[in-house]
Amino acid sequence: MDSQYKSAGIENGVTNDRVKEVAVANKRKMRGCDLVLRFLALAFSLTAAVVLGVDKQSTTVAVTLVSSLPPVNIPVTATWHHLSAFVYFVVANAIACAYATISLLLTMGNRGGKKGLATMIVVFDLVMVALLFSSVGAAGSIGLMGYQGNSHVQWKKVCNVFDKFCNQGMVAMGLSGVASILFFLLVVLAT
Amino acid sequence: MDSQYKSAGIENGVTNDRVKEVAVANKRKMRGCDLVLRFLALAFSLTAAVVLGVDKQSTTVAVTLVSSLPPVNIPVTATWHHLSAFVYFVVANAIACAYATISLLLTMGNRGGKKGLATMIVVFDLVMVALLFSSVGAAGSIGLMGYQGNSHVQWKKVCNVFDKFCNQGMVAMGLSGVASILFFLLVVLAT
Repeated sequence: MDSQYKSAGIENGVTNDRVKEVAVANKRKMRGCDLVLRFLALAFSLTAAVVLGVDKQSTTVAVTLVSSLPPVNIPVTATWHHLSAFVYFVVANAIACAYATISLLLTMGNRGGKKGLATMIVVFDLVMVALLFSSVGAAGSIGLMGYQGNSHVQWKKVCNVFDKFCNQGMVAMGLSGVASILFFLLVVLAT
Repeated sequence: MDSQYKSAGIENGVTNDRVKEVAVANKRKMRGCDLVLRFLALAFSLTAAVVLGVDKQSTTVAVTLVSSLPPVNIPVTATWHHLSAFVYFVVANAIACAYATISLLLTMGNRGGKKGLATMIVVFDLVMVALLFSSVGAAGSIGLMGYQGNSHVQWKKVCNVFDKFCNQGMVAMGLSGVASILFFLLVVLAT
């Protein structure tokens, strides 16, 4: 009986050690995933902010001032700070990028796995999910209006004139969409 | 010595019981909070969807067809399905409301606290945070454009004509904003 208990004890000890090893390996894997996702979120939000931030197109539009005279070519410029939704988008992505950098450094420094800091990071990741999704929604709806226009409110489409500006804007929104999904995955990983 | 150990054992037993009691009380409190937040999220998203869903305003606009004739009064109507951002807003809030109902029932039924189900609910809460924030962003940017217009893209403000429609729309967005914050808090509570 005694030897039975002893061997069971040894077996249990071995099993516990294995469980601990697996837990440590899982924790390391999760940490690795967290760091990679955070770095990618930083890269995507930075690129999105820069792509829309440098987006500018100058062209000329033919405008008829007096019906008896030929139309006059007027120079027009499209840039991100002409529309408040695009300003919000660039600012939100810049904030997300700055936060991703800070949180990356904090996560790398938090080797002991302090619970308070980890929870704070998850909450701020969640704030970034909210911020980025709302900014993509805001810029996306204005972008769609630019592509399609709306007859009910008499807003004409402008992307037939500013084609390069609109296409670059859509790329920025796609990049920011990926960044927001990465922050989403970071929260899922922590949960 | 023996009695010392015994009394320490009894004390430890009492402490453990107390810790367990506190843990159970905390769990109950958290569950109560979760149910209240979920019910409020359901109520706010439902109200937001209904408030924008029934939002309609008919008025007349004076339009000059020929410069030599007096302007003609043309009847115009504003409704949520004229703008794709508002359609997205109503659909997103309807989905959030339906999900809040289902998750409320599942949480009430999950008394055993099954971990798999609880995790699934947190992930879907997070999906609702993303969905609602993006819909508020989309509808908000179009609403702001309706209030202010934009001279760069020649989109004139329409809320001076459709004042009642715009104000009701802003109320719906405020309600949906509260619903999205409630889903946000549900994820924070679970974390």
